[in-house]
Amino acid sequence: MSGNTIGTLFCVTNFGESHGPAIGCVIDGCPPGMELSEADIQHDLDRRRPGTSRHVTQRQEPDAVEILSGVYQGRTTGTPIALLIRNQDQRSKDYGEIAQQFRPGHADYTYWHKYGLRDPRGGGRSSARLTAPTVAAGAVARKWLGEKFGTQIRACMTQLGELTLPFESWEHVPHNPFFAPVADVQQYEAYMDTLRKAGDSCGARLRVQASGVPVGLGEPLYDRLDADIAHALMGLNAVKGVEIGDGFASAAQRGTLHGDSLTPEGFASNHAGGILGGLSTGQDIEATIAIKPTSSIISPRTSIDVQGRPVDVVTKGRHDPCVGIRAAPIAEALLALVLMDHALRHRAQCGDVRQAVRPIPASNA
Amino acid sequence: MSGNTIGTLFCVTNFGESHGPAIGCVIDGCPPGMELSEADIQHDLDRRRPGTSRHVTQRQEPDAVEILSGVYQGRTTGTPIALLIRNQDQRSKDYGEIAQQFRPGHADYTYWHKYGLRDPRGGGRSSARLTAPTVAAGAVARKWLGEKFGTQIRACMTQLGELTLPFESWEHVPHNPFFAPVADVQQYEAYMDTLRKAGDSCGARLRVQASGVPVGLGEPLYDRLDADIAHALMGLNAVKGVEIGDGFASAAQRGTLHGDSLTPEGFASNHAGGILGGLSTGQDIEATIAIKPTSSIISPRTSIDVQGRPVDVVTKGRHDPCVGIRAAPIAEALLALVLMDHALRHRAQCGDVRQAVRPIPASNA
Amino acid sequence: MSGNTIGTLFCVTNFGESHGPAIGCVIDGCPPGMELSEADIQHDLDRRRPGTSRHVTQRQEPDAVEILSGVYQGRTTGTPIALLIRNQDQRSKDYGEIAQQFRPGHADYTYWHKYGLRDPRGGGRSSARLTAPTVAAGAVARKWLGEKFGTQIRACMTQLGELTLPFESWEHVPHNPFFAPVADVQQYEAYMDTLRKAGDSCGARLRVQASGVPVGLGEPLYDRLDADIAHALMGLNAVKGVEIGDGFASAAQRGTLHGDSLTPEGFASNHAGGILGGLSTGQDIEATIAIKPTSSIISPRTSIDVQGRPVDVVTKGRHDPCVGIRAAPIAEALLALVLMDHALRHRAQCGDVRQAVRPIPASNA
Amino acid sequence: MSGNTIGTLFCVTNFGESHGPAIGCVIDGCPPGMELSEADIQHDLDRRRPGTSRHVTQRQEPDAVEILSGVYQGRTTGTPIALLIRNQDQRSKDYGEIAQQFRPGHADYTYWHKYGLRDPRGGGRSSARLTAPTVAAGAVARKWLGEKFGTQIRACMTQLGELTLPFESWEHVPHNPFFAPVADVQQYEAYMDTLRKAGDSCGARLRVQASGVPVGLGEPLYDRLDADIAHALMGLNAVKGVEIGDGFASAAQRGTLHGDSLTPEGFASNHAGGILGGLSTGQDIEATIAIKPTSSIISPRTSIDVQGRPVDVVTKGRHDPCVGIRAAPIAEALLALVLMDHALRHRAQCGDVRQAVRPIPASNA
Repeated sequence: MSGNTIGTLFCVTNFGESHGPAIGCVIDGCPPGMELSEADIQHDLDRRRPGTSRHVTQRQEPDAVEILSGVYQGRTTGTPIALLIRNQDQRSKDYGEIAQQFRPGHADYTYWHKYGLRDPRGGGRSSARLTAPTVAAGAVARKWLGEKFGTQIRACMTQLGELTLPFESWEHVPHNPFFAPVADVQQYEAYMDTLRKAGDSCGARLRVQASGVPVGLGEPLYDRLDADIAHALMGLNAVKGVEIGDGFASAAQRGTLHGDSLTPEGFASNHAGGILGGLSTGQDIEATIAIKPTSSIISPRTSIDVQGRPVDVVTKGRHDPCVGIRAAPIAEALLALVLMDHALRHRAQCGDVRQAVRPIPASNA
Repeated sequence: MSGNTIGTLFCVTNFGESHGPAIGCVIDGCPPGMELSEADIQHDLDRRRPGTSRHVTQRQEPDAVEILSGVYQGRTTGTPIALLIRNQDQRSKDYGEIAQQFRPGHADYTYWHKYGLRDPRGGGRSSARLTAPTVAAGAVARKWLGEKFGTQIRACMTQLGELTLPFESWEHVPHNPFFAPVADVQQYEAYMDTLRKAGDSCGARLRVQASGVPVGLGEPLYDRLDADIAHALMGLNAVKGVEIGDGFASAAQRGTLHGDSLTPEGFASNHAGGILGGLSTGQDIEATIAIKPTSSIISPRTSIDVQGRPVDVVTKGRHDPCVGIRAAPIAEALLALVLMDHALRHRAQCGDVRQAVRPIPASNA
Repeated sequence: MSGNTIGTLFCVTNFGESHGPAIGCVIDGCPPGMELSEADIQHDLDRRRPGTSRHVTQRQEPDAVEILSGVYQGRTTGTPIALLIRNQDQRSKDYGEIAQQFRPGHADYTYWHKYGLRDPRGGGRSSARLTAPTVAAGAVARKWLGEKFGTQIRACMTQLGELTLPFESWEHVPHNPFFAPVADVQQYEAYMDTLRKAGDSCGARLRVQASGVPVGLGEPLYDRLDADIAHALMGLNAVKGVEIGDGFASAAQRGTLHGDSLTPEGFASNHAGGILGGLSTGQDIEATIAIKPTSSIISPRTSIDVQGRPVDVVTKGRHDPCVGIRAAPIAEALLALVLMDHALRHRAQCGDVRQAVRPIPASNA
Repeated sequence: MSGNTIGTLFCVTNFGESHGPAIGCVIDGCPPGMELSEADIQHDLDRRRPGTSRHVTQRQEPDAVEILSGVYQGRTTGTPIALLIRNQDQRSKDYGEIAQQFRPGHADYTYWHKYGLRDPRGGGRSSARLTAPTVAAGAVARKWLGEKFGTQIRACMTQLGELTLPFESWEHVPHNPFFAPVADVQQYEAYMDTLRKAGDSCGARLRVQASGVPVGLGEPLYDRLDADIAHALMGLNAVKGVEIGDGFASAAQRGTLHGDSLTPEGFASNHAGGILGGLSTGQDIEATIAIKPTSSIISPRTSIDVQGRPVDVVTKGRHDPCVGIRAAPIAEALLALVLMDHALRHRAQCGDVRQAVRPIPASNA
């Protein structure tokens, strides 16, 4: 299998290195006839872009996407859609010393062992820059799901370092640099300013939600919908944990509480997070991810070089002090890709998703 | 893709329903020449078996495995290995009423919508019984990994309902019905007795560990090792959360703490849980899973039937009041399958895993 | 990928060795709700069975299939369908000497090199016996295609050794042991009797046809329908050539002849064999396969043993003097599997196959 | 599965349309550490290029390849290698009328039915232009196989229209526009000149050979080496037949002749074409393909338009009067891709290919 491909019917193959000529992806299996333009994709890419606030990496990349194939006269043809993003603002001189050293918390050590060599510039293939093609592909999936089922996918921050964010409303999320569901983000900005001056980094927690999901997506075993969602989200750089519904809190619950009762008006609750037996119930899919603190920090760190001798590693370059800040659009894109793939898989085996026979599901609070 | 298959090079296709004639799996891609017998596999199956203590389902199944192919004169031939387990102790009359009702927390509702019909007996395909073939296949993988790399995989319970279990030693795990790492399990037995009498169920938390893992297993993007581990573990019935290393605690950590420093003597810590940049570091792989409380409980539950009319669902049959109690061998098997698959993928692309050039990794506490 | 699996959405994983306990397959991805019984499958298996005439191997196998999963109350559930066929009439003592020798024309030499060991009994995995599970799975596919599209798949012999068979009518095919489209097969029986007494073997040519095929099955590149048909048919033991439509005769044709004109009444001809640009046109799919003469013959053959020393190999056991005689049901099954897979793939990407908008295709003569 | 991808471990995903901005491919799974430059790939692309003689299409495309990723400091990194070829000499105005018509022998009719729309310019996705990325990827595979095993792959023309070409020597092949193994090609040039003036086209037959192939590549069932070779070659535009070894001639042979005897000095013959039981024997792999006459001819053809009304189709544009003339490099590339993929699959399951224990195979005449 192509390890750099996600999906089995809506297949996205991701290529590129952080400081190479270009990054991009090829989408194979997109249904034909859907209107698609660069603008549709650029919108989501712009939400993810670096250099948009002082709280994220200052690398300036326009991330302008070019559609190379698979679209004719504004509609998808059903043939592979290749999306290209040229790298522009590489500062490769920042990485000169690192080539011989292993930066703690990074993939340097593991890549060197696996491949025998690595492109050290900007983290090479391990860079979070490679989430841009994922977001581009996710935009295509999101569009189809929205038009087909009315699916809506959104994510927000629920924790920043040690600070827990209250959930006020989805309305606030697009209007602050944190994708935070709160009106006033001043304390979070102050927190980040302090952190940056200290030359350190912090983690985060995000909530990812999909509504308008048809019933029955997923397979009974192995390729269950929650398993594939976990696969996609855990595969995002820096993610160390994934939960569905009540997640780890479920462990301490009783069956009489956790099981979501069904009534003629719909489900009475959604502890399950929208997935039962590995298949979607039609309720909102709720997932949470934990993001570790950035490994690239300005504070010197103890490490070794390729000969095994001790060195102090000083990471230069421009980095996100909290990669969780820009993660929301990427988490949304990943969820879109998984749902898209399962929608096509379901259609393959069972025909068009039965919209009509849906008993009344209740959405989440 | 075959949704009921896990793995890309060590492929395991699982078949069967809880009350059908038989369950089993086909393993395709096993390296040739390894000694393998039913006894090797039966050992792991016996650890998982139902009816072995009063704290688990009382269904009596010998779970005797039969090797139908792929082994000749005691050695694997490299051809597909089919493993068969005949179902014996089905009590299908316990499921007569359920056929028209949707049990809360179960896959009844979702399967009915997806397929238009379902085998209701014992949960059909959604039953945890289908973890037996997974364990059988995992035994084969575990054997090869052990012989090839000295890999050791083990799991234990760390939380039962609201009770947190201390970690005393791996030594205790095989000697109590909870796979608990403690010498004295009396309080947990009392807890379960109370729960059973109340007709309720509880969740659990398990720790899964692999040591002796070679460096460099995993792919940079999408099919990262942690992503595939999350996929496998989240795909286990009743799992609602997966963590790697410090998991959700990472969100509140600082980069100066979380990043594991490298020294000439090895890694100074293992917050990462043995995986960096999606690839194994050679350190112990540490994962945690959260298991929800069993949905099948004797207490009546509110639900609807296939016409959407309200009913009270009374689940008969024999069930685990905490499926987490028997989950340890299954979690181990799943981790074995993922590591096996990645070991073969690594060998495909990069040749035999480089054992010699491993700088000194430090194992976990 | 699982090398012993065919198909991407209607996945068939084949297991078993000729003299092992059992052979069989697992079908994953079958649409739910279709009526299916052992009888449906047994019918096709009986057409393929050995020991049915003096012209084929005299090994007596009832080839009774057992459905182990995936069917409930007579309908497919959408879950994996495991089919089991127990081996009964193994005569393993016929293979004692062969274990150390490489029989010419067989897989002994190649398997020994690849795996380091082999099951020599009856050819092990290389035996044509393993076509039985293929036929079993093909029966399921054929049934669905017939009910969904009215697809009909049939094959007949067009050449036996040096003898060319005329095509009189499909009506004759089920009524003689050769699957020959002729009324009188006396000369072919005489030919085979002579051959058997001489202890030799011969090859054959078969025609395989599918009618009632919807338009548009196939992918533009790589997984074109003709490519997948060639893959399936060339994968059949002893096949050395595959043609689509006019096949090798096309090389000597002019474009003005070969291109099938379209008229409002339909295609004027079918040189293409039902496939254009890798996709089905709705016309009959016509393919031809060449089968080499059986390698297992009673005449002694020169060869070497595992030490490289010269030996005379005398093949005992019971073998087909012409494996082409029983190949028709297998070729049909393979074509059914490919069409089934592509029907599901088409449905995944493009929705239900557009039956209504079919311009008038003309069927073959 | 991604239908536009070939290979399971050395995966090549092809994208692009004939008149779109660019064509290209992404190679995933290439072993790391191999030297690779644009020049390595350009060499093979130049052999395939249009406009190089009066006997082929006059479209002028430099086909300059650009490596976008996966190579660092001149060596493959093990990460995906994206190859881009910009289209330059599109003459889209030649295709204005065709958009509403179905050209006989082309994919217009089938694509329109499958997707509901199509890019008609230059044949869109169905154009033979899309063989360029295949050749580019094949160059990478060929290089690795050559360095690893000394594998050599070459193809030549054996038939042009009705003319059979004698085989004089491989030496001549690079020195004439036909990839013909003969010193004097005058009669073939005259033949083509006549054909072109007549506004017609012809077919061809090609021989494809691989030497220096290790023993044991292939799987016992379904993904046999010959099956995958047939899949790749039949998937090449305009191919209507594939043979391995003696191919269709095998049907009329006796077992005593066809079976290749083994002696201590090696195989005595190679009727099998280098593949036994679906696995490579170490002998030369010999395959033959039949190519149909070009569908795009200047002579008017009868057809219908999208409303089903009769039209005369006059194909303008620049086309190959015999696509077989430029097919040799493409056939070689396809064989390289299949061998590459199987080499990695073999290494995954069985470790490095056992070079040492090869008994003496005899090469072909």
